[in-house]
Amino acid sequence: MAQYFSRRNLDFLLYEVHHATELTKYPYFEAHDRETFGMVLDSATQIADTIMYPHYRDVDRNQPELKEGKVTVHPQIKAFLRAVGEGGLIGAGFPFEQGGQQLPELIGSCVSFIMMAANNGMMYIGLTSGAANLIASFGSSVLIDTYVANLLNGTWQGTMALTEPQAGSSLSDITTSAEPRADGSYSIKGQKVFISAGDHDAVDNVVHLMLARIKGAPKGTKGISLFVVPKYRLTDEGTLEQNDVTSTGIYHKLGQRGTPAMHLTMGENDDCRGWLLGEPNRGLNYMFQMMNEARIGVGMTGAAIASAAYYASLEYAKERPQSRRLNEKNLLDSPQTMIIHHPDVKRMLLFQKAVVEGSLSLLMESARLSDLVRVTEGEEKENNELLLELLTPVAKTFPTEMGVRSVSEGLQVLGGYGFTEDFALEQMYRDIRITPIYEGTTGIQAQDLLGRKMTIKGGKAPQLLFAEINKTLAAATTYETLKPYADKLSRELRRLHEVTQSLLPFAAEGDYERYLMDATLYMELFGIVTVAWQWLKQGVAAQNALLTRNPAGEEAAFYESKLHTMKFYFHYEVPKTLGLATRLQDTEVLTIANDQTVLL
Amino acid sequence: MAQYFSRRNLDFLLYEVHHATELTKYPYFEAHDRETFGMVLDSATQIADTIMYPHYRDVDRNQPELKEGKVTVHPQIKAFLRAVGEGGLIGAGFPFEQGGQQLPELIGSCVSFIMMAANNGMMYIGLTSGAANLIASFGSSVLIDTYVANLLNGTWQGTMALTEPQAGSSLSDITTSAEPRADGSYSIKGQKVFISAGDHDAVDNVVHLMLARIKGAPKGTKGISLFVVPKYRLTDEGTLEQNDVTSTGIYHKLGQRGTPAMHLTMGENDDCRGWLLGEPNRGLNYMFQMMNEARIGVGMTGAAIASAAYYASLEYAKERPQSRRLNEKNLLDSPQTMIIHHPDVKRMLLFQKAVVEGSLSLLMESARLSDLVRVTEGEEKENNELLLELLTPVAKTFPTEMGVRSVSEGLQVLGGYGFTEDFALEQMYRDIRITPIYEGTTGIQAQDLLGRKMTIKGGKAPQLLFAEINKTLAAATTYETLKPYADKLSRELRRLHEVTQSLLPFAAEGDYERYLMDATLYMELFGIVTVAWQWLKQGVAAQNALLTRNPAGEEAAFYESKLHTMKFYFHYEVPKTLGLATRLQDTEVLTIANDQTVLL
Repeated sequence: MAQYFSRRNLDFLLYEVHHATELTKYPYFEAHDRETFGMVLDSATQIADTIMYPHYRDVDRNQPELKEGKVTVHPQIKAFLRAVGEGGLIGAGFPFEQGGQQLPELIGSCVSFIMMAANNGMMYIGLTSGAANLIASFGSSVLIDTYVANLLNGTWQGTMALTEPQAGSSLSDITTSAEPRADGSYSIKGQKVFISAGDHDAVDNVVHLMLARIKGAPKGTKGISLFVVPKYRLTDEGTLEQNDVTSTGIYHKLGQRGTPAMHLTMGENDDCRGWLLGEPNRGLNYMFQMMNEARIGVGMTGAAIASAAYYASLEYAKERPQSRRLNEKNLLDSPQTMIIHHPDVKRMLLFQKAVVEGSLSLLMESARLSDLVRVTEGEEKENNELLLELLTPVAKTFPTEMGVRSVSEGLQVLGGYGFTEDFALEQMYRDIRITPIYEGTTGIQAQDLLGRKMTIKGGKAPQLLFAEINKTLAAATTYETLKPYADKLSRELRRLHEVTQSLLPFAAEGDYERYLMDATLYMELFGIVTVAWQWLKQGVAAQNALLTRNPAGEEAAFYESKLHTMKFYFHYEVPKTLGLATRLQDTEVLTIANDQTVLL
Repeated sequence: MAQYFSRRNLDFLLYEVHHATELTKYPYFEAHDRETFGMVLDSATQIADTIMYPHYRDVDRNQPELKEGKVTVHPQIKAFLRAVGEGGLIGAGFPFEQGGQQLPELIGSCVSFIMMAANNGMMYIGLTSGAANLIASFGSSVLIDTYVANLLNGTWQGTMALTEPQAGSSLSDITTSAEPRADGSYSIKGQKVFISAGDHDAVDNVVHLMLARIKGAPKGTKGISLFVVPKYRLTDEGTLEQNDVTSTGIYHKLGQRGTPAMHLTMGENDDCRGWLLGEPNRGLNYMFQMMNEARIGVGMTGAAIASAAYYASLEYAKERPQSRRLNEKNLLDSPQTMIIHHPDVKRMLLFQKAVVEGSLSLLMESARLSDLVRVTEGEEKENNELLLELLTPVAKTFPTEMGVRSVSEGLQVLGGYGFTEDFALEQMYRDIRITPIYEGTTGIQAQDLLGRKMTIKGGKAPQLLFAEINKTLAAATTYETLKPYADKLSRELRRLHEVTQSLLPFAAEGDYERYLMDATLYMELFGIVTVAWQWLKQGVAAQNALLTRNPAGEEAAFYESKLHTMKFYFHYEVPKTLGLATRLQDTEVLTIANDQTVLL
C-alpha cells in the first residue's frame, strides 16, 4: 500500500514539538499516557489502512445518488461507520461519563488527519461528533439520552444544518422557522442546502443540528435558535417515525464525492418537529462551538489530502526516470535520472512537504489550545481561548488555500500522468478544492481574523500570539544554526505589526469596508508568518534532538530533513510577505465602488 | 446564452493595441482589411455559439471511449470539424495557393481564443493545422498533395506524436524506430502516449506527425527524424488501407474530456509505414515549428478557459444577493446586496479580468510577431524571430499558470455552488489544469526561457524585448495619469535585469544546475513583468481613446474599465516580484543534492 502520511512525523509533532504528554498532568487527561495515545493512533491507522484507503478511488467513482427520496451511499461507508463507532473513535474526546475516552483533541486531530489522508470522501464522523458534542453541551438530559449514544456508536449520523438557498455566508438572513407546539417541541418549516451527510442509508437516523428562527424572534443573528431536528423522531413507544424531513435534491460535486451534500426540505406536510437546544435566540453562539471545531476539521482535511498527495508525488518522483541532470545533459549513454534529482521537481516536493508539515503543526497547536481551554481556569483559560479564537481562521485557511496549491504542484510532478485517472492526484486535486469554501470561505475567515479576532479585547489576542512566538524565538536563538531564521521571523513579526497598524485607523473610523478590503491578503500574510513560527518551532525540536540525542541513520536523516524543510520554507515561502505587505500598505483603493463598470 | 468572451475587448486589442490593420500593408496580407478580419471573427463566433458552446457540458459528460480498437467521440465533434473545414477556418492562415486565406496569425489566434472559450473540449483543429503546416513547409509535393487538402477541409485529423512512455520531457530518449524500405518509405515501430486526438471516429483518417529514429542514427536529439504516419495509407489505386497503427489505450482525464488522449502502437504486424519529412535527423528542428505554434496555442487555451470562467463568475456575482455591504452590516431591513459589491469578490473578479486580458494581449503580441517573421526580411526578420522565441515560453506559461489560479478564484466567487456540477466553473477548473503540462511543462518552459532564450546570440533577445518595452514606457510617460505606472514598470525592468545578472555567472561557469535551479520562479517574475508591459500598452491605448475620441456611455466605461484593471494589475500583481526577486538572489541552495533524505 502506498504511504499517505508519516507516523514518524506525527510522533515528532506530538511529543517533541507540542508536548502531548504534558496534557496528561491535568486531572481530566490523567488516565492517558503516550501508550494510550499510541494505541488510539494505531487503531485509527488500522481502520484507515483496511477500510478507508483501499476504497479511495471507488468511493469517488460511485457517488451517492438520490432516488425516490432515498440516498444511497457506497456500501463501504457503513462498514467504516461501524468500525469507528465500535472502536470508540467518534466519541474519543468525550468525557468518560458520556461514554467517551476523555482523549485530548490533540490526539483526536491526529486521528482525523490519518483518516482524511486515507480517504477524505468518508467525511462523516467529524459532523457526528460535533453534533453530539453540541447536544451534550447544551441539551436537556432527555435530548442527551435520546441522541448522544446513538451518534457516538456510529449508527446515527449528525449534521450541521445552517446554509439556506438565500443565506450562505450571511447567516443573519436565514428564514427556516420554528413555531412552538403544545408538547414543548417546535414545528419546523424551511429549506437547507449543502448539508453534508444530510441523508444516507449507512445509518438508521440522521440528526440535524439546525438553525431556525422562532416566530417573532428579533431580526438578524440575534434571533436565531438552535434545534435538534432528526430525520426520524422517537415515538412515546420508543420506535422511530418519519419527521417530515425530505431530501429534495442532491448535489453532484467536483470532489469529496463519497459524502452526499443534500438539499433538505422541512415541514412539507407541517409535521416536522425540532427540539430547542439551550435558550431561544442564542443558537448562533452555540453553533459557533461546532463551527469552530468544524473549521479546524476542514483545515485538517486540507492538510490530510495534501499529505496523501505529497507521498504520492514523492513515490512517483523517486521511481520515474526522465532526462539527465542539468550538468550532465550531454551524457546520452548514461541512464536517465530519477526526476527527484531535478531541482525543479525537488522544489515542488519540498513545497508540498513544507505546506503539509507546517499546516499540520499549526492545526495541532490549535487542537492543543482547545485541550488547554478545557482544563485551565481563570485568566489562563481566557488567554487560551483568545489565542485559539485568533488561530482558528488561520488554521482553517492556510492548510486549505496552500493545500490546494500544494496538491496542484503534486499533480505537476507527475506531468501528463498526473492529469489522468491512472493516478490518484487528479482526485486529490478535485477533493481538496472544497476546503477553502466549507465552513466559511477564505474571504469569511479573513474578515473574521482581521475584523474581529485582531481587535477583540483591545487587541489582546495578537499580543498573546506574539508572546508565544517570542518564546520560540528565544529558544531558537540559543542555536547558532537557527539564529538567522529567528532573525528572519522577528523581521516578519515587525512587518506584520506595521501592516496591522497601518490598517487599524480605518476600523477606528468605522470604515470597515476599507479596513477589510484586502483582508484575504492580510490572511495570507498572517498565515505565512504563523506557519513560519511553526516551522521554527519544529526546527528547534529537530536541532535539539540532533544535539542531545546524537541519532544515527534514518533518525538522523529525519531530523536533518526537518531542518532542511524549515530552511526551504523560510527561503521560498516567507519572501512572499514582501509583496503582500506592499499591497496592504498601498493607499490605492480599487475594489470599493458602487458601479459595476470597472468589470465590463 | 451566457457570455464567454468579449468581442469589444478583442477589437480593442486587435486594432487599438496591436494595430492589426498595419499588417495589411505587407503584400502577403494585402487582400485583407478590418472588414475581412471581422468576417472571419464573426464566422468563428457563429460556429462557437451554435456548434461548440451549447455542448460544453455534454462533451465532458460523454467522454471518448476505446472499444474493440475503435475510438468513439461525441457526435458533435464531427459537426464541428465539418463546419470549421467548410468555413475555411482550419487553413485560414495558409497561403492562397494551398487553399488558405493568407490570414494573419494575429486573427487566427483570436479565432482559437473564441473557440476554446466556447468549448475547449473540442481541441482538434490546432493540431490539424499544425500538422498540415509542417507537411506544407517541409514535405515533398506528393506528401503535400496527399495530405494538406484533406487536413484543411476537416475530414482528416492531424496530430503531433512525440511523447513515449519513457520519454516525456526528454525527447532525446525516444526509441520509436524507422527502417528504410525499398519504396522510399520507412517501416515504423514503437509506441507513443498522450497523443491528443490520436484516433477518433469523427474523421476518415488520422495523420500523425511522428518523431522516430532511423536505424543507425546518432544518439540524442541529433538522431531524430520526422515522419508522416497515417492511420490509413493511400494505395496506388487511391483507396485507403490500414497502416498498422493500433489504438492500444485511451487515457481518462481530469478535464478536456472532449478530446481523446491516445496510447498508440505502431508496427505490431511489421506493416506500419511512415514517410520522411525533410532531411533525416533534422526532425526535432522541424517539429519545433509545430511545437512553438502549439505552445502559443496552449497559452491561448489557458486564456480562453479563463475568459469563459471570468464571465461566468461575473454573471453570478452580479445576480447573487448575499449579506450587506461591510459598512451597512446592521441594516437588517435592507435587502441583501449583490456579491459583486463586496470588495473581496470584486478583487477576485478583477484578478480574473487582469489575467485574462493581460494574457490575451501577450498572446496576440506573439501572434503578431509570427506574422512579422513571415513578411519581414534580413535583420528585421531575425529580430522578430528572436523576440518571438523569447516570448513563446512566457506566452505559454503565464496564461496557463495564472489561468489555473484565476479559474480557481472564479470558482471561489460562487462559493459552494462553484463546487457543484450545477455550474460550469468546476469543469473549467478541471479543463484548464492540463495547460501548464501540455507541450512542455512550466518547468520545461522556464528552462527554455532562462537556459536558452535569455542567452542565445549574446543575450540579444532580452535586449530587443527591453527596447520594445521602452517604446511603451515612452508613450505612457506622455500621459500624466500613466506616468506612475511607467515608473513602476521601469523599476521592475531594472529589478529583472539585476536578477538576471546575478544568475548569469552560474551559466558562464557551466553550472547549469545552479543556474536553472529556480528557473520556474524566474519565469514567474519574467511573466509578471511582461504582462505588466502588456497592461501598460493597453493603458496607453485606453487613455489615448479617452482623450482623443471623447467617448460616452458604454464606450467610455469600457476604456475606464481598462485603466482600472491596469491599475489593479500594477497594485495587486506586480508587487509579487519583490518576493520572487528576493528568492532568486538568495544564495541558499536547497534543491540540489544527490541524496533523497531531505524528502523523508
